[in-house]
Order: sequence, then structure tokens, then C-alpha cells
Amino acid sequence: MSMRTLTVGLGERSYPIHIGPGLIGQHALLAPHLASGRTVVITNETVASLYAESVERSLALAGATNLRVVLADGESQKRWETLDAVFGELLRAQVDRRTVVVALGGGVVGDLAGFVAATYQRGIPFIQVPTTLLAQVDSSVGGKTGINHALGKNMVGAFHQPLAVIADTSTLDTLPDRELAAGLAEVIKYGAIRDAAFFAWLETNVDRLREREPVALAHAIVRSCEIKAEIVALDEREAGPRALLNFGHTFGHAIEALEGYGTWLHGEAVAVGMVMAANLSARLGRLARADADRLETLVRRAGLPIDPPTLAREAWLRAMGRDKKNEAGRITLILLDRLGMAAIEKDAPQRELEALLSGR
Amino acid sequence: MSMRTLTVGLGERSYPIHIGPGLIGQHALLAPHLASGRTVVITNETVASLYAESVERSLALAGATNLRVVLADGESQKRWETLDAVFGELLRAQVDRRTVVVALGGGVVGDLAGFVAATYQRGIPFIQVPTTLLAQVDSSVGGKTGINHALGKNMVGAFHQPLAVIADTSTLDTLPDRELAAGLAEVIKYGAIRDAAFFAWLETNVDRLREREPVALAHAIVRSCEIKAEIVALDEREAGPRALLNFGHTFGHAIEALEGYGTWLHGEAVAVGMVMAANLSARLGRLARADADRLETLVRRAGLPIDPPTLAREAWLRAMGRDKKNEAGRITLILLDRLGMAAIEKDAPQRELEALLSGR
Repeated sequence: MSMRTLTVGLGERSYPIHIGPGLIGQHALLAPHLASGRTVVITNETVASLYAESVERSLALAGATNLRVVLADGESQKRWETLDAVFGELLRAQVDRRTVVVALGGGVVGDLAGFVAATYQRGIPFIQVPTTLLAQVDSSVGGKTGINHALGKNMVGAFHQPLAVIADTSTLDTLPDRELAAGLAEVIKYGAIRDAAFFAWLETNVDRLREREPVALAHAIVRSCEIKAEIVALDEREAGPRALLNFGHTFGHAIEALEGYGTWLHGEAVAVGMVMAANLSARLGRLARADADRLETLVRRAGLPIDPPTLAREAWLRAMGRDKKNEAGRITLILLDRLGMAAIEKDAPQRELEALLSGR
Repeated sequence: MSMRTLTVGLGERSYPIHIGPGLIGQHALLAPHLASGRTVVITNETVASLYAESVERSLALAGATNLRVVLADGESQKRWETLDAVFGELLRAQVDRRTVVVALGGGVVGDLAGFVAATYQRGIPFIQVPTTLLAQVDSSVGGKTGINHALGKNMVGAFHQPLAVIADTSTLDTLPDRELAAGLAEVIKYGAIRDAAFFAWLETNVDRLREREPVALAHAIVRSCEIKAEIVALDEREAGPRALLNFGHTFGHAIEALEGYGTWLHGEAVAVGMVMAANLSARLGRLARADADRLETLVRRAGLPIDPPTLAREAWLRAMGRDKKNEAGRITLILLDRLGMAAIEKDAPQRELEALLSGR
């Protein structure tokens, strides 16, 4: 296996996604972006102990002086108090506007470090170095950054595109099984919304993916990033088709917020959310029941949950009512018309939705 | 006097600045920006009691449904706790991405409400309705938004351009003298850095301005906005010449941070900072002593302070070391070569700067 490089085409904000084994050790991938000679690696405790030194060795070889900022682990870090502490560390170290932030970790680190870069001194550059499957296939690509609010997931943030994404597939060797499965949820999402052949390939290869067979994993990552890059290039700021990438997320974000951030992994909540959205699509007669069942089966075989937690219908509706896709108080959902083909529904039929949420 | 309209030329992000008396009552200026029919007026207690109802009347005539959010007064509100509370109000009201924020007030409200708009659900549109001289001539134009950090002024923020700036000069009738003078500091700045003839006009007309003679005030506001719009169009994100607008601000921000936000008005701190920067320019032989004296005289005649507070040299240098213009640990300053001509100095001579800060 060698490195694959894709491009997110956004005019002057275009950037490469490098995917392959051992990329953290390749300082030549970093060097073009480090003209100022100064970097800040933002990571968490778990990832720091595994990969911070090798990234910093590459940064040194690329000629940069680095400050390391280590966060505690977990989704609960995506809050203002953490940001404020990071800003304090950067200010005390007199980090300037030309310094490059390197986000080293999973989705939480990438979202938070990206938002630090988006807002420190009104914006500084950053590089994504994702070390989880979920971050490599989804959250590190596309420039969405932000934190959670007590009342809703990712409700505070900014669009801020990285200079590059460096996805070192070797880092997946140390990923816990539960986190690997969470990443597979987003991989399945791409097949479900955009590529029926890829969905079928996943049905054939899901066991190889769970066993971390490198060729299979590399294919899943590359195909996921291709689809994501294509949609982001069409609609950077989610005025239209980018919302399709939110399949399963309206239900999923509600689960995360209602159950307490960090109780469910994001990918686990999205997995259940996709099953719920497919079931709603089937109830509405948009999706064949057999296809909703295929999705549920694939999600289960990926090692992911398929059943929602028991929550009051009113709590569901209130949490879903705060989704960023909504307009004028109506809940927007992403539904499936068939496997590989999703659609934006701006006014989800209330009766069928409530029946689903009531478990009827 | 009639309305004047200037344009900030930023391609697809270009927008108008309307300047004139009674504009808050003209709903036709708002209507083109309110396609979604939903607005959030963010203001403070003082301004709400004076102008919120008339703005909301215009919004209603323009067909919008409004949510009013009222902050406590003062610079100390530019902090995360305030933002977090505002986000909570918007989320509980299910404010969506197409809703337009209307920032009604002075610089604090504009900076904070602008940053709310920049980061709520990763960005929503906003309109600036500045009601202080300082906001009308400076902070409402150019898209700088943000909050303070305990370690530095405006250290967290974003560039987020408004849809329009509506500067109703009638609102200056209710402005306290101290706030009017603070606004004059920024007006003087434009003359000092960019327009010697305007500087001379200010020397002739400063008493009329302090007496709020409407024709004089209107001229000062229009000329200030012309200069600001020109520089912002050249350099939206402050990669180069926009830093000239920071004349007096490196010293001024240090005063604000060290003395406690809100103790000095921003314009007062900038006034002293301009005198300090001019004196340093004269010490370095760049500016004629007589011109530094002219600046000091005009600042004093505008009702503004000219003497810095007594602060330890180390405190000055530490606070100035955190300025956003700095690179690689060196303090960047804006100096004058003559009245009407400023320059960026990226490596301020340490010996002369320390002598100035030591009061020698």
C-alpha cells in the first residue's frame, strides 16, 4: 500500500487529504505548510502518549518550533472552559497569527482544535492529523469546527478549512474496537446516502474491516473521503446538499445531548440514528422495507447498536427541534429513497415521526 | 442633511454603510436583508430603553418576527459567560440559521453580537446598527467581531462581515460626553494615519464636534467611514495595511487589559496610545516633534486623556507582547512618519520603547 492523495476543491482554500500508513513520520508532508516555523500541537492524553513524539519529530525535521497542548480525553471536553484554558496557554506562550495549529487526535480534538484555530486572534491556520477512523473518514475533512452547548451538539462553531489533512492509517492499529466500530458508522453512512455499490462492498467486507485488514480499511477510508470531498466542494457552508451528510445525525445528536455528552460515542449515536431514519423512510413508503433491513443488518454486523435509548417523546422532539438544519421551527430530516440515494425532507411528517419516537 | 451611503467593497461580501439622521425609523433599509422574516435584536440595557422599540417597529414593518436579547452594560460583558447565555436564549427560542442578528448599540454590543452571529450554528447573518460615535466611525465597519480574554483584549473572535451598517446619527443626541469624546479618538486616528487635510479640518472643527453640531459630525463620520472602508477593502483579514488602523491600539489595549476592562473607555485608551506612539515616533526621529505636539493638542482639545497610567515597564511589555500584530515574539507598532502617513514597524526598537514606558 502506498499513499493516496485526494483534493478538496474549494478554490483558493483547496487542500489535500493524504491517506496511507506511516504518514506521521513523513515530515515532507508537513513542511510546505510551516513557513512561519512555529506550531502548536493540540492533542489529548491518550493520543499524546502514543503519537505526540513522532509528530513532533517530524515537525522538528520540517524546521518548526512546537508548543504541545494536551487536553483531557472525551467528548465532554468540547466546551467553552476547555477552549478558554487553551487560549490562555497560547497567549502566555505569545503564540502569534502565523503559527500553525496541528490537531492530533480524533473528532473531539479536531473539532475543538479547529475552533481554537478559527477564533484565536480571529483565525490562524491549522492542519488535521486524525488518528481515529471516524476522524479520518469524516470529521477532519470539510472545515466544520466547534464545541457543544448544554442545549445542543456542535451548536457553537465555525467553518474553517485546514491547510491539509494527514490521515496516517497506521494509527488505527491502536484504536479500541469500540472506536473502530464508531468510525464504521460514518463509513456506512456514505454508502447509504451516495453509493449503492460501496454499500454492497461494505456488506461483503464488514468482517475484514472489523479485523482491521489494511487493504480493506484503506479502501473504505479513501472511498469515504472521496464522497465527503465531493459533497463539501459542492456546498462548503451547508446551504444545500451538504446536509445529506447529516443522515442519522438528527436522531444521533439528540441521543448524545439527552444521554449526556460522552455516554454514547458519536458514531454509536449516528448508527442508531441511521436505523431510525431508515425505518421512518420505510414507514413513509419512500424506502423498501428490505433496504431498511439491509441497513440495520450492516450496522449490527459492524458491532454497532441499533436500538435507541428509552426517552420521552417530548424530550426527543425538543432536542431535535434545536437541530442546525431546521428552518422556521420545522424539523428537517435526511431520509432515504433507496440505498445510495438520500434526500432532504424539510418538513418531516409529524404523525409518523411521533409514532416512531413513541416506539409504536 | 440627507442620507449618505458608502460601500465596503469585498466582492460577494460587499455591503452598504448608510449614514444619516433618523435611519432607525426607515424600515426600507432593513427589508432587503430579512428574507427569512426572523430577527434577533441584541442590545444592552441603556440602548434598549432608548431605541429598541423604534428598531423593532421598523423590523415589524419590514415583515420580521423578532426576539430581543438584552445584555448588561459595559466592556466586561465581552466575555464567554455572556456569549454562552446568549446562545442559550437563541437555542431555547429555536433560532435557526436563516435568522438575522441585529446588533443595536456601541462597540461592545457590536463586537459581541457579531461574534454570536459568527459562531451560532457555525455562522448566521447580521446587521450592525451602531448607536455610539465610536461604533459608527470604526467598530461597526469591517467585520471584526470577538470577545476579550483575561490575558488580552479582543483575543478571541472572527472576521464576519455584516449584511449592512445602518448608522443613525440621531442616536448621538443621547450619547454621554465622555462616550462622544471616546469616539473622537478614532476619528482623529483616521486623520493621523491617512489624511493630513482631514486632520487639519479636525483641528479647526473640534469644538463644533464636541458641541455635536450635526453637519460637522456627519462630515467626520462619513470621512472616517470612507477611510475605513477603503483600507478594509484592500486587506479584509489584516495581512498588511489594515494594521495601520491599529495606530494607538497596542498601547491602548495594554492599558485596557492592565487597568481592568471597562475602567478606561476603549477610545480613551486609544487616545493615550496615539500620543505615546507619536512620542515614540518623534524620539526615533521619524516624526517632527511639532507634529507629535499637534496630535497631543488635538487629543486634549477633544476632551481626551493624554497621560498613560502609572504601570510597571514589565507589565507594559508583557501585555504588549500579546498583541495580535506581533510576529515571532517581536512587538509590532504603528508609527507616524508625518501627520497623515503611518507605517507598520515590525520590530520596535527596544531601547527607545523601554525609555518611553519608563517615563524617561
